Amino acid sequence: MSLNIEKGDKKRIVIVGGGFAGLKVANKLKKSGFQIVLIDRNNYHQFPPLIYQVASAGMEPSSISFPFRKIFQHSKNVYFRMAELRAVYPDKKLIQTSIGKVDYDYLVLAAGTTTNFYGNKNVESEAMPMKTVSEAMGLQNAILANLERAITCATKLEQQELLNVVIVGGGATGVEVAGVLSEMKHTVLPHDYPDLDPSLMNIYLIEAGNRLLAGMSPESSAAVERFLRKMGVNVLLNKMVTDYQDHKVMLADGSNIATRTFIWVSGVAGSHVGNLGTEHLGRGFRIKVDRFNQVEGMDSVFCIGDQCLVCGDEDYPNGHPQLAQVAIQQGKNLARNIRRLEKGKEMRPFKYKNLGSMATVGRNKAVAEFSKVKMSGFVAWVMWLVVHLRSILGVRNKVVVMLNWVWNYFNYNQSLRMIFYPKKAHEIQEREAREAVTHWGEDLMKEEKE
Amino acid sequence: MSLNIEKGDKKRIVIVGGGFAGLKVANKLKKSGFQIVLIDRNNYHQFPPLIYQVASAGMEPSSISFPFRKIFQHSKNVYFRMAELRAVYPDKKLIQTSIGKVDYDYLVLAAGTTTNFYGNKNVESEAMPMKTVSEAMGLQNAILANLERAITCATKLEQQELLNVVIVGGGATGVEVAGVLSEMKHTVLPHDYPDLDPSLMNIYLIEAGNRLLAGMSPESSAAVERFLRKMGVNVLLNKMVTDYQDHKVMLADGSNIATRTFIWVSGVAGSHVGNLGTEHLGRGFRIKVDRFNQVEGMDSVFCIGDQCLVCGDEDYPNGHPQLAQVAIQQGKNLARNIRRLEKGKEMRPFKYKNLGSMATVGRNKAVAEFSKVKMSGFVAWVMWLVVHLRSILGVRNKVVVMLNWVWNYFNYNQSLRMIFYPKKAHEIQEREAREAVTHWGEDLMKEEKE
Repeated sequence: MSLNIEKGDKKRIVIVGGGFAGLKVANKLKKSGFQIVLIDRNNYHQFPPLIYQVASAGMEPSSISFPFRKIFQHSKNVYFRMAELRAVYPDKKLIQTSIGKVDYDYLVLAAGTTTNFYGNKNVESEAMPMKTVSEAMGLQNAILANLERAITCATKLEQQELLNVVIVGGGATGVEVAGVLSEMKHTVLPHDYPDLDPSLMNIYLIEAGNRLLAGMSPESSAAVERFLRKMGVNVLLNKMVTDYQDHKVMLADGSNIATRTFIWVSGVAGSHVGNLGTEHLGRGFRIKVDRFNQVEGMDSVFCIGDQCLVCGDEDYPNGHPQLAQVAIQQGKNLARNIRRLEKGKEMRPFKYKNLGSMATVGRNKAVAEFSKVKMSGFVAWVMWLVVHLRSILGVRNKVVVMLNWVWNYFNYNQSLRMIFYPKKAHEIQEREAREAVTHWGEDLMKEEKE
Repeated sequence: MSLNIEKGDKKRIVIVGGGFAGLKVANKLKKSGFQIVLIDRNNYHQFPPLIYQVASAGMEPSSISFPFRKIFQHSKNVYFRMAELRAVYPDKKLIQTSIGKVDYDYLVLAAGTTTNFYGNKNVESEAMPMKTVSEAMGLQNAILANLERAITCATKLEQQELLNVVIVGGGATGVEVAGVLSEMKHTVLPHDYPDLDPSLMNIYLIEAGNRLLAGMSPESSAAVERFLRKMGVNVLLNKMVTDYQDHKVMLADGSNIATRTFIWVSGVAGSHVGNLGTEHLGRGFRIKVDRFNQVEGMDSVFCIGDQCLVCGDEDYPNGHPQLAQVAIQQGKNLARNIRRLEKGKEMRPFKYKNLGSMATVGRNKAVAEFSKVKMSGFVAWVMWLVVHLRSILGVRNKVVVMLNWVWNYFNYNQSLRMIFYPKKAHEIQEREAREAVTHWGEDLMKEEKE
């Protein structure tokens, strides 16, 4: 196997990861005379701010996903390959991927993060993460299947275990999924499951720190907490989850909560690059870069977005927050810097311009902050809608998402609550992929011996 | 586990299977003073005529799927349970399901059919069926993943194996999927995969008989064959598939076709009921019923739709064709008969009224037959659209499907080509389901010993 891309006379930029950061670089440079090779493990770009809507069966997965080949259909210089990065060889200006080797003139690492289970094996194998559209689809299926099973239980205790939801992590994702599942409890449950007592469904949001949305102001934290409590969410602050055993979430204070719907959105770790030594990693396993997003000690290798940790910025001594805006701005700056390098000019350091942040808790409820302006409630919610609708890719998706939202607003009662599970072909694909992985592994070892 | 449904003073009708037939009975009787228990292995009704559109990434799975709980939200007498039928005990008027036992006054079997691999184990484990939305989603993922992999091949031979599509079975489903994949080849491939030579993608439609659409007139067969050949589909008639080995479809004449996309729509078998003896089964493993759809020798047990074989109808000595219209009309007739039984009246035999049949091959291309009128081409295609749009459930879905179609008509270029695979939560669910199945098995054996 190989990537099958002829080099030609253009310089080649290999971008690993087509999230907000990687996509921005590709878009900014696609007409700049480079050959761009975009590598991603999925064949589509996803829109993380709305993933929680998929988890609650409120939105189509396809409304927030965009096939790369479609995005770059008219860009002859952009080559997409579905693959995973295995190793980087900066001395040879070469990377090893799951589908073969490819050399580069510039390498851009933008592979984002994965869920961090902090080494707890029980939690890792049983908790459900919610970072990707695929994970959200799995979570949606689990929630619906647990509701169906709850009806057949002999005892209220068993029922409660299936109905309870425990969300660990009080960041934006945790807050949003708690809000949307609480809406589901109050609007969908009484209609679709008249046999179930909705009061048996308790939603817990557990946060180890002393407030929700630690990245926003204390006022916003307080507003969000107030919204959630009003909606019936049990917000538990200063609580550490230590384990998950026998369908029970164990807390450090000795108490536990029985649940089969255990959602883990508590932390992330920078995506792992096979042969990158720990000397390159900083807080949260993020790859350390200088203020130009250059990986230390590697020529022409950059890292941007959630995967990187910018060192040396006085305003952000601990690195930047892992937000879409940071990723987009870093992508923009890097694209400009690569163009400057080609012209023999000096690069410009990355400077984060905080455009504000927001989180939504449900219909008419959100918080938003723009420098000194803080909002909460309906106005913040409308702003949240507009900002997210604007940034969604593609006319068709904007229309579909807006129709979905309007429909939802006047009609709580969505029709998306199907338990879908792609069958059979997948098992064959997975088996073949496993065989291929073995092959790739050998390939990789060969490479390392050379 | 149990179904947890209080009997009350109403007579109980248990319906197994929520396809066209079962859904019709439930809808016709939901206001007739019965308690209706609907059992299905999925939590949604699916619309088979459009499943092929999902396989080709042309339509959302959710546009042709309808959650049962939503359908019956306002029907207090209808209870839905997601479960599978294990055994029938007509003497006790009781069935055993995957979630426990339930007794009935009337039992309606309407579980449809499953794909028939005619005992060929290699074909069964490697071929992709396309009877359900889930299977179509799997097939879509496989086609897209094979395209991605084809790009990375070292040789044209390997590429061809990944690009070739072999469809076995020249019925309506085979014809429709051949047509839609041929459209994909000509419209999507050149845009999305400029690196691939579309001429390497060969689509084969293999039929054992001497014409396509054996259920329609020879004129329609000829028209469809002409359409498909014009679109570049290799139609192979009078060819038997004997095996699948080393990614090659083996034919009885000794030849073979290399492919990794091996679609099997060649035949169906009536869904199996655990403890039903072979004396009850007729052609195609269908359950033999009399002209009132009563299962022979069983009191108050009926079977309707594709799962049954009506014996004794002079006009259809070999049983009725397995079509949506037959299922719907049998459901209607059975609902009326159950009402008549309650009033002490005699049942009326089922009489199939042939409303015509149709199949589509692609944009502007279809065949349709209504008694003596036969059509093909654009008029038949528009008729196909109207008939199917009319029969799709739900306003939202009608709107979505129509928008999708209009959008598609003017813009070949859909954005649905994502490889989605619900993650993690599913593995947990599947493991728990396996554990539960063991438990159910024990339960079932206990029952049989009693």
